[in-house]
Amino acid sequence: IHSSSSNPVGSNVTLLLFDLLKGLNTLDISLARIDYAPYGDWNHPHTLPRATDILVVVKGTFHVGFVTSNPPKLFTKTLHVGYDFVFPIGLIHFQLNVANINAIAFARLSSQNPDTITIANAGFGSNPAINPYVLTKALQVDKNLLDDLQSRS
Amino acid sequence: IHSSSSNPVGSNVTLLLFDLLKGLNTLDISLARIDYAPYGDWNHPHTLPRATDILVVVKGTFHVGFVTSNPPKLFTKTLHVGYDFVFPIGLIHFQLNVANINAIAFARLSSQNPDTITIANAGFGSNPAINPYVLTKALQVDKNLLDDLQSRS
Amino acid sequence: IHSSSSNPVGSNVTLLLFDLLKGLNTLDISLARIDYAPYGDWNHPHTLPRATDILVVVKGTFHVGFVTSNPPKLFTKTLHVGYDFVFPIGLIHFQLNVANINAIAFARLSSQNPDTITIANAGFGSNPAINPYVLTKALQVDKNLLDDLQSRS
Amino acid sequence: IHSSSSNPVGSNVTLLLFDLLKGLNTLDISLARIDYAPYGDWNHPHTLPRATDILVVVKGTFHVGFVTSNPPKLFTKTLHVGYDFVFPIGLIHFQLNVANINAIAFARLSSQNPDTITIANAGFGSNPAINPYVLTKALQVDKNLLDDLQSRS
Amino acid sequence: IHSSSSNPVGSNVTLLLFDLLKGLNTLDISLARIDYAPYGDWNHPHTLPRATDILVVVKGTFHVGFVTSNPPKLFTKTLHVGYDFVFPIGLIHFQLNVANINAIAFARLSSQNPDTITIANAGFGSNPAINPYVLTKALQVDKNLLDDLQSRS
Amino acid sequence: IHSSSSNPVGSNVTLLLFDLLKGLNTLDISLARIDYAPYGDWNHPHTLPRATDILVVVKGTFHVGFVTSNPPKLFTKTLHVGYDFVFPIGLIHFQLNVANINAIAFARLSSQNPDTITIANAGFGSNPAINPYVLTKALQVDKNLLDDLQSRS
Repeated sequence: IHSSSSNPVGSNVTLLLFDLLKGLNTLDISLARIDYAPYGDWNHPHTLPRATDILVVVKGTFHVGFVTSNPPKLFTKTLHVGYDFVFPIGLIHFQLNVANINAIAFARLSSQNPDTITIANAGFGSNPAINPYVLTKALQVDKNLLDDLQSRS
Repeated sequence: IHSSSSNPVGSNVTLLLFDLLKGLNTLDISLARIDYAPYGDWNHPHTLPRATDILVVVKGTFHVGFVTSNPPKLFTKTLHVGYDFVFPIGLIHFQLNVANINAIAFARLSSQNPDTITIANAGFGSNPAINPYVLTKALQVDKNLLDDLQSRS
Repeated sequence: IHSSSSNPVGSNVTLLLFDLLKGLNTLDISLARIDYAPYGDWNHPHTLPRATDILVVVKGTFHVGFVTSNPPKLFTKTLHVGYDFVFPIGLIHFQLNVANINAIAFARLSSQNPDTITIANAGFGSNPAINPYVLTKALQVDKNLLDDLQSRS
Repeated sequence: IHSSSSNPVGSNVTLLLFDLLKGLNTLDISLARIDYAPYGDWNHPHTLPRATDILVVVKGTFHVGFVTSNPPKLFTKTLHVGYDFVFPIGLIHFQLNVANINAIAFARLSSQNPDTITIANAGFGSNPAINPYVLTKALQVDKNLLDDLQSRS
Repeated sequence: IHSSSSNPVGSNVTLLLFDLLKGLNTLDISLARIDYAPYGDWNHPHTLPRATDILVVVKGTFHVGFVTSNPPKLFTKTLHVGYDFVFPIGLIHFQLNVANINAIAFARLSSQNPDTITIANAGFGSNPAINPYVLTKALQVDKNLLDDLQSRS
Repeated sequence: IHSSSSNPVGSNVTLLLFDLLKGLNTLDISLARIDYAPYGDWNHPHTLPRATDILVVVKGTFHVGFVTSNPPKLFTKTLHVGYDFVFPIGLIHFQLNVANINAIAFARLSSQNPDTITIANAGFGSNPAINPYVLTKALQVDKNLLDDLQSRS
């Protein structure tokens, strides 16, 4: 398995918002290009609080998915070049490059200012850290395991 | 420490939406009452994809917080009876009852259909489970630890 | 009966808008704390042209109400500590402290700029005054009675 | 002075909403034609909770006005045939036919469901009546005068 | 037939937007007065991308119409003084003064910034010109006829 | 030059709206796949009254453009596989396949119900036809040329 092990943040996201392309202002749109290293590169589980994301694959093959709210049901699909996939606003979703080549996907976001919340960073890597009691209860784990998780984000 | 150990889901949330109270329809509002067992009961880290939440404490004392998007910065406060706190739409937030009594808080939600995503459930308890490769990369943990996390949600 | 007779404006409203708390900007929310003198203090019949108001009682007991549009039907309720009440956007509504103590209520307003129209002030106390012919016809009163009303607002 | 004394409700308003003209649905528009008896007929002080109103005079001459929110400032104008006037959403406003002929005005309302709150009806004619203590305090009048007002609406 | 032959642009449109009348800001409204020369003056087929237009005739008689989207169906009406007509947002529409007098109509536009796209100007008079291959295919005409059309806009 | 001469309507548009894919409901999104015959196939100048359109090229090479409102300025670009282009809401735009192969583009539309107005059809092919006087004035052409145009749409 080849992964972008030198870059624990995963894939490389280039955002094109209205601040760079003034003509997008008020059009409720922004764009992103996502570049993934060969097999194993990924885009973290994250939410877009203000945008639905339509992804189209320009190069490579992806395993993608999102989780619904209540109960948490996972929807996944394998995407090839020219495939479209919709990640509904606010839901946790991810992409994984499963091809052995550099891969490219384009995201269209239904907001000119979509924002991104990376779940692992927000949960385990905030500054300062979330009260460990809250997280050990939420995850039903002990303090040692939580310390381990927090040290990695 | 007393916790609601018999109930791993944490506090008890009673939602009042427009389906129960027809007059709320189109007013962009819903309400929730949250009951917490004495010291140690909590409301899981979660997001409301479609609502800002204003919490007012009716009984008890709370440690509450939310995490911003980028970089993830934690804001917390201790709330006493009559205190107000705003959890902005889409951000991960939580409450923890730090008083040794049953506690009550009221939430006002700026949507008639706010939805809730409980992070641990969506991340580790979805059906089917998220591809372990995605999660081990996101959390920078090994497969054994992830299995442990998933078995608890 | 004790009333805040020294203050014909009634209760004391402290608004917290996005201009004071920048983080509220774009969240479609503002807050108000309303302090009432003991028994007899009130919040004038008024409308909020841009906000629904959810009131929660923090201290005291209130007689509250609102009037629907067409036909004008009055809804009232007696509120104790911890009670919630919804005043729908645009409707005429009021609160009256019916307890013999200083009372406090919190309002959450579904706009960052809710505005307030106090009916008596707008109707009888505008500058300049509304044409008396309009008001005597609207109220079906004579000019003397109207002069009396206008002199008090 | 000639007034439509046989009709204390004032002018005759004919509303054209999306329920009658289906094509208006979702266009955020509705229309009203207002017919006024000769000199002295009026349209009560009222608010439109969900619409700005643009009035154009088709026949007759009008004294019109609206009151701002805080402080209450009155803006008035005399309108002749072909004049336009804007009554901003939520503000108390009125029209008075000051010509000695039947008069006609067209209103365009910026909502497909504008609603109307006639101040005198809502304040003094609700069913049941608003607590007299609230109204006597709000108007700074005694109970006898209020009884008089309420008996006329 | 008398036409405003000295002015190929047709009728004279005077826009009143929020930049001139500050009070219109945020009210989702703007106004226009349109003056037409006697019989034969017209307002070009055009769309308003951001506004529905309600026209009222103040002087003169008009032939007006709009075309629906799919299939393209034409709705027309002859308007006299005091008539109202609604041109739905985004649809191609026009007015023609069919009276032998100077005519006046008022438009109320459901946006504070309605914009206007004059079809003939955009199609045949853009700078630079649209690729002739696109237009000859779209119109099913030959290049000579297209050159003729483009030279006139 | 090879054109889809057997099909004067041009390219083949397959729409995917919320009526077919229920999950798109309320997400303010719809999708279209557009298939073009080899060199010379085109998508007519048209407007989308309710949507901005982001086009991505999956196969082939395109000449695309849109015209601004006032003054009418043309923006064009040659798009290759993987290129993105934004057509702002309400503006007249078009695409032309300039490669000698079957071509494919994906459109993402910022509305769940975008609607389409094909300019030539609406202008010259409506049922019934627009009054010829209006069109000859708008285009500054004579009646014979207009008859010719209308017979082709």
